[in-house]
Amino acid sequence: MPEKALLNELIDSLRCLPGVGPKSAQRMAFHILQRDRSGGARLAAVLAEAVRSIGHCQMCRTLTENALCELCRNSTRDDSVLCVVENPSDVMALEQATGFRGRYFVLGGRLSPLDGIGPAELGMDQLAQRLDELRPAELILAMTTTVEGEATAHYVGELAAERGVATSRIAHGVPLGGELEYVDGGTLAHAFAGRRRVAAE
Amino acid sequence: MPEKALLNELIDSLRCLPGVGPKSAQRMAFHILQRDRSGGARLAAVLAEAVRSIGHCQMCRTLTENALCELCRNSTRDDSVLCVVENPSDVMALEQATGFRGRYFVLGGRLSPLDGIGPAELGMDQLAQRLDELRPAELILAMTTTVEGEATAHYVGELAAERGVATSRIAHGVPLGGELEYVDGGTLAHAFAGRRRVAAE
Repeated sequence: MPEKALLNELIDSLRCLPGVGPKSAQRMAFHILQRDRSGGARLAAVLAEAVRSIGHCQMCRTLTENALCELCRNSTRDDSVLCVVENPSDVMALEQATGFRGRYFVLGGRLSPLDGIGPAELGMDQLAQRLDELRPAELILAMTTTVEGEATAHYVGELAAERGVATSRIAHGVPLGGELEYVDGGTLAHAFAGRRRVAAE
Repeated sequence: MPEKALLNELIDSLRCLPGVGPKSAQRMAFHILQRDRSGGARLAAVLAEAVRSIGHCQMCRTLTENALCELCRNSTRDDSVLCVVENPSDVMALEQATGFRGRYFVLGGRLSPLDGIGPAELGMDQLAQRLDELRPAELILAMTTTVEGEATAHYVGELAAERGVATSRIAHGVPLGGELEYVDGGTLAHAFAGRRRVAAE
């Protein structure tokens, strides 16, 4: 079908997006072509530019089209706290939800030797160097609680310990507003074991 | 945030896609940049080309990058049956699901005077002309059963009646495998009223 190729190719290309199957891709293609051509043209231009020019920050390894990301270039941020996360999206989530004003370091994944992801792939040398330069008072571990996340947190914790940097880890437990009966067993056990004494006043 | 602009702009642009909110757009942007840059580059190129060059078929008004779409150019299709649908996606759905080998005409919407969509916007003149040229033995109405769909079907039916063309309408009723208790009342009433006598054998 040479002449239907372009529409079919568009539907096909849209499937590179996560969570988009054949039906959604078809719906998206028709929506753009019938209702929002200007939005489609803008998306095409921005996407091409983003794929071409967005790389990694030389200091914290997050995604940016510059040599240094906005957060690393911001001289008003607190150099005494460094937060280590797995992905660039974690930086965005923490920035949106918390009042954290320190520095970040993005590993870009978790230690997973079976998948060929070792300390080198996660930039652990660069993190060690950053710790030496920055000499932060506190290093915050914000990895997930998967087996790989735990191993990664342990590895990063060792790097910090060797340099005498105090390490903390974000709290894992029952989400705010979460009903106990709907929380999964693992989280509940973790929250129970990690209970804190309430100040007696 | 001038230097985060490109990533944010990408997330923003992705929201032109139907059913994509801020969270999905963010997820899509990070997925493309971290895992599938080649897919992203291809999508950008195909999308730009599609938005630029896909227009409407001069004969049936469906979407195509050529003057005539593949189906209109196919000389082996049956000229004696013309199926009138609302959208290009309906053509694709019918082609995928049915063995229909006739011709199509795509209105591109439904009569809706309040939204400024009258016979001219739906190409009714072009349809009339097509009926005069083609002189089909049967015209199939495949509109939806909304109020506007019914009005549109009635209008097209009149065009056909004026030319002595026999008109049929696709069956509306309980979907195959649909349990009666889960089918909406309107559909059930329609299916009940439109019952057919079973051949006695």
